[in-house]
Amino acid sequence: MRASVLRSGSMIYRDDVAEPVPGPGQVLVSVSACGVCGGDLHFATHCVMMAELGDQMTGAPTLTDGLDLTLDVFMGHEFAAEVIEAGPDTTAPPPGTPITSIPALLTADSMQPLLYSNTNPGGYAERMLLSASLLLPIPNGLDPRHATLAEPMAVGLHAVNKSGIERGQGAVVIGCGPAGIAVIAALHTLGIEPIVASDFSGARRELGRLLGAHEIVDPASETLFDVWARSGKGAPVVFEAVGVPGMLNEVLRQAPHSTRVVIVGACMEPDTITPYFGIAKELSFQFVQAYEPYEFAECLRRVADGEIAVAPLITGEVGLEDVGAAFAALADPERHCKIVVLPSQ
Amino acid sequence: MRASVLRSGSMIYRDDVAEPVPGPGQVLVSVSACGVCGGDLHFATHCVMMAELGDQMTGAPTLTDGLDLTLDVFMGHEFAAEVIEAGPDTTAPPPGTPITSIPALLTADSMQPLLYSNTNPGGYAERMLLSASLLLPIPNGLDPRHATLAEPMAVGLHAVNKSGIERGQGAVVIGCGPAGIAVIAALHTLGIEPIVASDFSGARRELGRLLGAHEIVDPASETLFDVWARSGKGAPVVFEAVGVPGMLNEVLRQAPHSTRVVIVGACMEPDTITPYFGIAKELSFQFVQAYEPYEFAECLRRVADGEIAVAPLITGEVGLEDVGAAFAALADPERHCKIVVLPSQ
Repeated sequence: MRASVLRSGSMIYRDDVAEPVPGPGQVLVSVSACGVCGGDLHFATHCVMMAELGDQMTGAPTLTDGLDLTLDVFMGHEFAAEVIEAGPDTTAPPPGTPITSIPALLTADSMQPLLYSNTNPGGYAERMLLSASLLLPIPNGLDPRHATLAEPMAVGLHAVNKSGIERGQGAVVIGCGPAGIAVIAALHTLGIEPIVASDFSGARRELGRLLGAHEIVDPASETLFDVWARSGKGAPVVFEAVGVPGMLNEVLRQAPHSTRVVIVGACMEPDTITPYFGIAKELSFQFVQAYEPYEFAECLRRVADGEIAVAPLITGEVGLEDVGAAFAALADPERHCKIVVLPSQ
Repeated sequence: MRASVLRSGSMIYRDDVAEPVPGPGQVLVSVSACGVCGGDLHFATHCVMMAELGDQMTGAPTLTDGLDLTLDVFMGHEFAAEVIEAGPDTTAPPPGTPITSIPALLTADSMQPLLYSNTNPGGYAERMLLSASLLLPIPNGLDPRHATLAEPMAVGLHAVNKSGIERGQGAVVIGCGPAGIAVIAALHTLGIEPIVASDFSGARRELGRLLGAHEIVDPASETLFDVWARSGKGAPVVFEAVGVPGMLNEVLRQAPHSTRVVIVGACMEPDTITPYFGIAKELSFQFVQAYEPYEFAECLRRVADGEIAVAPLITGEVGLEDVGAAFAALADPERHCKIVVLPSQ
């Protein structure tokens, strides 16, 4: 079958990928649409470093455990699909049923993330395998392109849930890329006010406003924490959704006393901070990653019920041949927020 | 009067300091004893950097605001004293009453920390001024040398309170200097088990055990988180009480998933971390500083009631002439934990 795979840092189109065969508990599905995640761009650029860091790290398994970067890597974890057929002794919805799933495959004793794999195709392929018991039907006749946004929205909801923010508090969101936008949407649903967000890109500021930010700052002309101070509220919860070296230290330097900083932006490079800033203001950090299954299901519902207006986030569509071009195009925040891969195109 | 002051990075003995005169709301006291704080050693070495960082920082006042480092700086904030006389229109305990206080002076609208000052002598002096309404009597005929330990113990209690740790969870304490020891004492009082602590110094490991650690690790021969893993518990709350560059990243690298890291060690230099470790394991940091007045009062009570055995922590006594020598001697963790300055000596 056809797929786009990561090979030596680039996305390569292939038409000779072995057809996946569903085992017990698995379902073969046809991918309708798959969003390109910023994390996949990061991974394409930094996978060698990530694997090295994963080897150094102890205390938990990593997403690169067992991955061989000299072989092709399947990616694509923001997918909507249709059921083709269930594996042996497996109950699944009827063929043609639109479904999605958290990107994971069940094994006998765990849930294996389906983000980077040498063996299991992801959403950048015509067909893939999913675990029958993790399937969620896509409700309301929802456009599969829109359904792919449930996954990145769940990342934002998880960050907001982990932050412990409560109504009555305000929030600062640094960066209006897909992660920042998802945080804004989740804060908006929770009734947080004000939500003060920033981005250097005018197009992304517009998306931030559309998804629920009350104040949008262009950091080229205003200082984010000065704008926050005008709200008259105390310490905000800050969501750092940029993820480039130096951002964290700027937040430490400028944030008010007792600010909680949630780190949503995945910075892969080493980063230098000034602990003194954190100590002098008793700041706290919460690093976050991914989401819980219930948060994914909740975001699918929100998107399907029209509570999150995801259509304007989709700024491009490509076929499997052009996933590499989509990765390159996403570098321009004025032009693109989310590109959706349509394998049938 | 006599005092030891910080001048160009060194502690200098002076016998020509102007006699403090209590104003309204103030009380003149005679310093009985004053502990040398590790923070004072840090400050002597790094005060220029700290002042520069304070200038860069926004969002809260700093301890160096308004401080002129070209002038002498009074320090000494772990003091026990006796009342001499109250200022005009001020009610105070009778002369001779043993008292202590949080190191702060009240002004019309705030509490000014009394840590580093060009104008107000601290505990490294014969006499100093305190705010009448902040005075706490030293109970139970407690030895004033022991009473000075209430202040550093409050730093540990505050760190434990800010950590949100609860009975049933375990803790890891990195470093058994005065800050780590104070954390261990507060964890012990709370009934936390196990408390796994580490220090390269055998003398300090002994103190850690004495104050309540259940397991003590020599990092030269064992890996702290391996020892923790043997406890069979999930994620510990980690208290980083060393404060040298690189420690934080080692904790990030090794700590189990979902670990909360409380940063008690004051690292003044810039420090490089690997955000990926934090993200991959959803770790959190809480930077802490100082304590609340009620935590100070509670620690004074604990020390006075013998709940914390502070006597073994005091490893030296000096007069005002030898504060500089005490600063130098404290560099050797095998020999010293806490040196107390006795101005009458």
